[in-house]
Amino acid sequence: MLVHFGGNSARSSGLLDRVEASLKAEGLEYVELGGVRPNPRSGLVYEGIELCRKEKVDFILAVGGGSTIDSAKAIAAGVPYDGDFWDFYRGKAFSEALPVGTVLTIAAAGSEGSADSVITYEDGMYKRGATSEALRPAFSILNPALTQTLPAYQTACGITDIMAHLFERYFTNTKEVEVTDRMIEGLLMTMIHEAPRVIADPDNYEARANIMWAGMMAHNNSCGVGRVQDWSSHDIEHELSAIYDCAHGAGLAVVFPAWMTYTMEHDVNRFAQLACRVWGCSMDFAHPEAAAQAGIAALKAFLKSIGMPENFAGLGAKEEDIERMAHTACYGDGRKGTIGNFVKLDEKDVADIYRLML
Amino acid sequence: MLVHFGGNSARSSGLLDRVEASLKAEGLEYVELGGVRPNPRSGLVYEGIELCRKEKVDFILAVGGGSTIDSAKAIAAGVPYDGDFWDFYRGKAFSEALPVGTVLTIAAAGSEGSADSVITYEDGMYKRGATSEALRPAFSILNPALTQTLPAYQTACGITDIMAHLFERYFTNTKEVEVTDRMIEGLLMTMIHEAPRVIADPDNYEARANIMWAGMMAHNNSCGVGRVQDWSSHDIEHELSAIYDCAHGAGLAVVFPAWMTYTMEHDVNRFAQLACRVWGCSMDFAHPEAAAQAGIAALKAFLKSIGMPENFAGLGAKEEDIERMAHTACYGDGRKGTIGNFVKLDEKDVADIYRLML
Repeated sequence: MLVHFGGNSARSSGLLDRVEASLKAEGLEYVELGGVRPNPRSGLVYEGIELCRKEKVDFILAVGGGSTIDSAKAIAAGVPYDGDFWDFYRGKAFSEALPVGTVLTIAAAGSEGSADSVITYEDGMYKRGATSEALRPAFSILNPALTQTLPAYQTACGITDIMAHLFERYFTNTKEVEVTDRMIEGLLMTMIHEAPRVIADPDNYEARANIMWAGMMAHNNSCGVGRVQDWSSHDIEHELSAIYDCAHGAGLAVVFPAWMTYTMEHDVNRFAQLACRVWGCSMDFAHPEAAAQAGIAALKAFLKSIGMPENFAGLGAKEEDIERMAHTACYGDGRKGTIGNFVKLDEKDVADIYRLML
Repeated sequence: MLVHFGGNSARSSGLLDRVEASLKAEGLEYVELGGVRPNPRSGLVYEGIELCRKEKVDFILAVGGGSTIDSAKAIAAGVPYDGDFWDFYRGKAFSEALPVGTVLTIAAAGSEGSADSVITYEDGMYKRGATSEALRPAFSILNPALTQTLPAYQTACGITDIMAHLFERYFTNTKEVEVTDRMIEGLLMTMIHEAPRVIADPDNYEARANIMWAGMMAHNNSCGVGRVQDWSSHDIEHELSAIYDCAHGAGLAVVFPAWMTYTMEHDVNRFAQLACRVWGCSMDFAHPEAAAQAGIAALKAFLKSIGMPENFAGLGAKEEDIERMAHTACYGDGRKGTIGNFVKLDEKDVADIYRLML
C-alpha cells in the first residue's frame, strides 16, 4: 500500500509512527509519500501515480486532513487510468479507482466520507473538483483525540468549512425538502454550540467529537440527496485560495456572508427560515427580509468570534485581482460562463460579490 | 439470485413483474421465494436457506418492507453458516452473509440501511434481533412512488416505527452528544411535519420522499454513533406483536408514551429538551417536569391524530398476559433479568409499564 501524508506534523505528532507500527505488526508492506500541502497540487499527484504504478500499490492510506485525502483520491483515480488524471477534474466521468482508507486529523473537508476530491492544477492554478462513488473511502478512522492538538485558527477554519458544506446544500430551489433542511439545521446548530467550546478549550474531547461527526455528516451527502445544491461560494473561494494560498475555511468565511447578502432577495423566506431555526432570530412577519438579514449578521458575528477574517484584507487578497478572479471562476478551464444553481451567477455577479468582501 | 418477497401485494401492484422483467433484460438468473409475513418467522428462513443452498444462490434481492428485508438478511446469514441461523439472534457474533439488495415498498423499519434484522422464532414465539455489518444491504432502491399506494394505517404504523427508532437513540445517559441529539430532533420534526400531509393525501410524493429518507436515516445509525442506546421499548413491544400479531408500529405507539411516563423522572431535562426543541413546548423553568409531561402529551395527541391505537384494547392485548409478557421480555431465551440502558428495567418495571397501557 501507499501511506500518503502531508507535512511534518504527521511525523512530529507521533501519529505516523503509530500507523507504521500497526502496519508492520500486521505484516503489511507499504511505501510512503509525504509532502501534501494545503490546497493540494497536481505535481505531487503525478508523482504518486508514478510511484504506485512502479511499486504495484493496490491500496492508499491517507493520514491527515482533507488535502491529504483529496490528494490520495486523485492518485487512486489516476493509477488505473490510461490518460491524464486531470481529465476527471475537468468533468470526465469515471467509476474506477484504487481503494482509499483514511486516518483523519482535522474535522473540516468531509473528504473522509465523501465521493469528492479537490486539486489545484499547477499549470494555471486552477482549483477543481472531481466526484465519483469510486472516490468514497473504503473506511475512515475518526478519532477526535487526533484533533485536540490543532491550533485554534485551523480549528476555526475547519468549522467554517463544515458549515459551508451545509450552506451549499441548504440554498436550493428544490421545494419540499424538509428532511434534509432539518438535518442541515441540526448540524449547523451543533457547530454553533460546539465551536466556542472548542476554541476556548482545545482539549474538549466531547466538543471535538461532535464537530468531527458533524463534519463527516455535512459532506457525505446524507443531507444533500434529492435537492439541487449550489456550490458557487466554493467556486468563488477556490479562486482566492488558489491565488493567495489562504486557508480554504478562511476564504469561505469571507465569501459566504457576501454571497448571502447578494442572493438574499432570490428567496427571502429561505434565509428567514435559516435565521429563525438556526440562529434563534425572531421572525419579522411584516418584514421577512429583516429576519433574513439578522441571520446573515448572526453568521458574521459568529465567524468573527471564532477568529475568522472578515474581508479581503484578512485574506491578503487584492482588489485589482477581482476582474481576473471573476473571469476565471466563470470561464476558466472549461466553465461556460455561469456558476451556482440557487442563483446562476455570471462574471459581473461574481465580481460584485468579491467587491462586497472589500 | 433469490428474489424474496411477501404477500400478494408485490405481485398485484405489478412491482414484482417489473423486477422480474429487469432481471430478465439483464440476463440474470433467479429463483423466487414469497410468503414473508409481518413479524417474519423462522420457518420461512429455514426454507429460504435450504433453497439458496440447493440453487447455489449468491445474492438475495428483497422486494418489500422491513419484514421481507429482515427475512432476506436472516437467510443471507444462514446460508454460509454450518450451525442454526438462530444462534445469531441469540447473540452469537458473525461477520459473514450473502450480499442483500433491497427494493423498498414501505418507509418504516429502516432495515434497508441498517445492520439489523428481527425474526420471530416459532418454537416459543421469541422475537429477537441480530446485528452485524454483514447484514447491511449492498444497495437499496428507495423510490417514494412505490409507497404511495400504502393504506393510511400502514403508513401511520411506519411513521411511528421511524419515530421509535429515533426515541430509542435519543434516550441515553451518554453526555455531550449534541450532534446526534440535533440530528434526531431534526428527523422527528420532519415526521411531525410530513405525517399529517401524507395521511391527508397519500399521493403526496414530496411528503412520501421526506418520510422515506428520514426512515433510512433514523436507523442506519448515523444518529446513534457515540451514544448508548436504550431499546427496551422495542423489547416490550416485541412481546405484544409476537403474541397478538399486531403491527409493530401500532404496538410502539402504545408502548412509548407509557415507557416515557414511567422513566421520565430519571432525566427530566432530557424529556424537557425533547418537548421544547421538537414539540414546540415552552420550557417551564420552575417546573421542568411540566414541560417534559407536555412533550409526552404532545406525542400522544400526535399518534392519536394519525390513527394509532392508544392502549391494550386498541392492540387486542389482554391484561391477564401482562405478567407472562414481562417475564418473557426480561428472561426469555437467554435474557438476564433486565432490559434497556437509559433505565434498566426488571420484570416488575416492565409489568408496571404494561399496566400504564391498559
